[in-house]
Amino acid sequence: MRNDTIAAIATPPGVGGIGVIRVSGPEAFTVVSSLVRRPGKPDELPPVPPSHRLTYRLVIDPETREVLDEVLVAFMRAPHTYTCEDVVEIQGHGGPLVLRRILRAVLACGARMAEPGEFTMRAFLNGRLDLSQAEAVMDLIDAQTEAGQRLALQQLRGRLSDQVQEIRHTILGVIAQIEASIDFPEEDVPTPEAEELSPPIVTALEQIQRLLAGAEQGKLFRQGLRTAIIGRPNVGKSSLLNALLRTERAIVTPIAGTTRDTVEEVANLRGIPLHLIDTAGITPTDDPVEQIGVQRSRAAAESADAVLLVFDGSEPLAEQDRRVSAELEMMGFGADEQTHKRPVVIVVNKADRDQRIELDELKQLWPLAPIVHTSTLNNEGLDALEETLAELVLAGRAVNSDSVLVTNTRHQDALRRANEHLQASKASLEQYLPLDFVSIDLRAAYEALGEITGETASDDLLDRIFRDFCIGK
Amino acid sequence: MRNDTIAAIATPPGVGGIGVIRVSGPEAFTVVSSLVRRPGKPDELPPVPPSHRLTYRLVIDPETREVLDEVLVAFMRAPHTYTCEDVVEIQGHGGPLVLRRILRAVLACGARMAEPGEFTMRAFLNGRLDLSQAEAVMDLIDAQTEAGQRLALQQLRGRLSDQVQEIRHTILGVIAQIEASIDFPEEDVPTPEAEELSPPIVTALEQIQRLLAGAEQGKLFRQGLRTAIIGRPNVGKSSLLNALLRTERAIVTPIAGTTRDTVEEVANLRGIPLHLIDTAGITPTDDPVEQIGVQRSRAAAESADAVLLVFDGSEPLAEQDRRVSAELEMMGFGADEQTHKRPVVIVVNKADRDQRIELDELKQLWPLAPIVHTSTLNNEGLDALEETLAELVLAGRAVNSDSVLVTNTRHQDALRRANEHLQASKASLEQYLPLDFVSIDLRAAYEALGEITGETASDDLLDRIFRDFCIGK
Repeated sequence: MRNDTIAAIATPPGVGGIGVIRVSGPEAFTVVSSLVRRPGKPDELPPVPPSHRLTYRLVIDPETREVLDEVLVAFMRAPHTYTCEDVVEIQGHGGPLVLRRILRAVLACGARMAEPGEFTMRAFLNGRLDLSQAEAVMDLIDAQTEAGQRLALQQLRGRLSDQVQEIRHTILGVIAQIEASIDFPEEDVPTPEAEELSPPIVTALEQIQRLLAGAEQGKLFRQGLRTAIIGRPNVGKSSLLNALLRTERAIVTPIAGTTRDTVEEVANLRGIPLHLIDTAGITPTDDPVEQIGVQRSRAAAESADAVLLVFDGSEPLAEQDRRVSAELEMMGFGADEQTHKRPVVIVVNKADRDQRIELDELKQLWPLAPIVHTSTLNNEGLDALEETLAELVLAGRAVNSDSVLVTNTRHQDALRRANEHLQASKASLEQYLPLDFVSIDLRAAYEALGEITGETASDDLLDRIFRDFCIGK
Repeated sequence: MRNDTIAAIATPPGVGGIGVIRVSGPEAFTVVSSLVRRPGKPDELPPVPPSHRLTYRLVIDPETREVLDEVLVAFMRAPHTYTCEDVVEIQGHGGPLVLRRILRAVLACGARMAEPGEFTMRAFLNGRLDLSQAEAVMDLIDAQTEAGQRLALQQLRGRLSDQVQEIRHTILGVIAQIEASIDFPEEDVPTPEAEELSPPIVTALEQIQRLLAGAEQGKLFRQGLRTAIIGRPNVGKSSLLNALLRTERAIVTPIAGTTRDTVEEVANLRGIPLHLIDTAGITPTDDPVEQIGVQRSRAAAESADAVLLVFDGSEPLAEQDRRVSAELEMMGFGADEQTHKRPVVIVVNKADRDQRIELDELKQLWPLAPIVHTSTLNNEGLDALEETLAELVLAGRAVNSDSVLVTNTRHQDALRRANEHLQASKASLEQYLPLDFVSIDLRAAYEALGEITGETASDDLLDRIFRDFCIGK
């Protein structure tokens, strides 16, 4: 099944100047050759041009002979291609309908529709990329900040793979020493001493721990921070979203309850993708559509990493304000690092008006949360708000473009397991347990690290990873 | 200004496997050369590969030397390129951020951001496409049905241009005959007889009229039919939209007033793009947000080519139903071909329930409109509804894939003017007016036709045409 010929539209959906259809597999040249013609020679199969050369052709419908588009086509001979297989790229006009019709013609001539990520999976299976590099392709495409893009590109270019392979190499050296002495006890192989085996294990441990230390931060740079904007109706939540995005994304009216559904947008917070979720005001209501809105607001808060809790500074605290605060506290928000509560930033909005809110009571309600005063009318306090949010999240850490930050939960998990097994093998050594014990844990650590690069990944894992890719990659 | 080097992202915006940046102009090779490197050779400018050859390179940031992406790049030597200038295409990973960073680097090295349509405009200015062909590029990309795409591709391949040039050639022949006799009266050039001049003019007229006859239909195939779904609240307008689209596009609840804003989607009606506009129910309301919704419903009806007027068949006609009918009639709907009223189709929905609507009164309200009974619950009557709509619009005409249909209002306008001038010249001939009169109108017709292919188009007209293109085309 993995040796058939696959095809997909590789460019983003939508309207553009150019669209590309990619075909890969042993029949790629034959399939596309049967579809393309030179202008004025509709009945003659043209010769395949030199490899990698963009050539002007017409694409015809294999059944009706109707011309579907004027294209540039490149036939690329294995193995110097994206998948290491024969690849053909057809560059047509970038209209969705045109591209779908060409794709349909390619499929009619014997190619199969590619699964999501299948081109990259083939690049992995054919050894051109390891697994962490293949995953980096997706991260690179999805990158929402320059920092995230830089990390993905580092990983694509093998920086993480290199470090992981170095650690594996170290571990394998220790394993080899131990196993030689176990396998050939009567021969001239001396049983290695714990003092001799320990240093490389310690080195490997240090390297893994350095990678793990950067992982939390790496994840943040890749996945970003889900931040819900919460408050009772009409305190200015949608205006705050628009102000932070510097656009008019959400519909704003002076009417309480204008926002019915949640609106999610991404802003860039010092290189971190800040997913801002504007919500309907939380309030008791009999209107069933509004009730759905309030439920969605609660769900948005539940799933958020942080909350911007918005108050109207020009009015005294309302009962509804207190109730929303109580709800958030019950959800485990509180900006307390000791108890790992999720951060809340208090936003006192409408600073352009006379302030009548009881700040003392607010501070009692949220003793640990920073308070920022904003006016979305005058764009006041927005920088301070971003600053506060960045402080809370980054806690002073910055991105160093040279450090390898593990951005992927799967890699983090594998590193954690490798770490545990190495710790166990070190403990066994220190307790002078039989070297078999040491060796078993070293092997497990070696395997866990192999999952990152894919050397020891199961088919099931591969399927799970590539399923999340977009089609055409 | 038109000889500098321009650049833009040529693929659709959004996330995909591949994205392409296109650079065109005299400095295209120099600009891109300064940005690309071979892997492992960050300090060495690689040689420019053979023309049109996709070559693996790294793109670096010209200032920081940071690697921005791994790409395939094709240097394409003038004149065998899209613009007839030197063109470079950089094929990177299809993430919006990656592509923007590469584009920024290209611009930093001396290229200018391309205006919308500027690549195609250069192809026109350099003579590779005439104006109607350039316009066809945009139509092809925007095509929403196969019929529309086929017409655009015909035009791109020069079918319309050929016919227009043939007519111009005929007219020019007549002009030459007349002018020779005027310019050299004393020489041996005999004054041509009206009987001799008339036949080619009649031929040209017939050809123009054939083109004009297909124009209405052509426009419909390209631009489609704006159809508003109108009715009082809760008769099933959103369910009808979903049913016609075969998806769950609009939010449907049993609550009257769920739809607040208009929702527009495109369905395919026998090759015609059917723009369906779901609207909020028209009803008197005090809720200001709902009032905006009702205003938008009225505006949607005002601007529609046709209306699906929906009633709830399970209930007697309500006062509100009558009021909506009256409003539509005042807007000039009525399905009357004689008086050119815009078509209404009456949809009696909820056919799955006992019918209590007064059909007789409905027929009195809309004597000329067809009535279709539907049930969106059981998907009943939808085919009949599409059938009725298609009948009304196409009036039995079908698309013939060989006929040249003028799809462009601008072309239609030029043809109309050419037609008038040819009629006038024919009349002058018949009245034996001096040949100068004939000649003036023939020249005007010749010029009008030249606007279609762009031979006689002003800069202003060009700007207006290309402004509507997408960037990168």
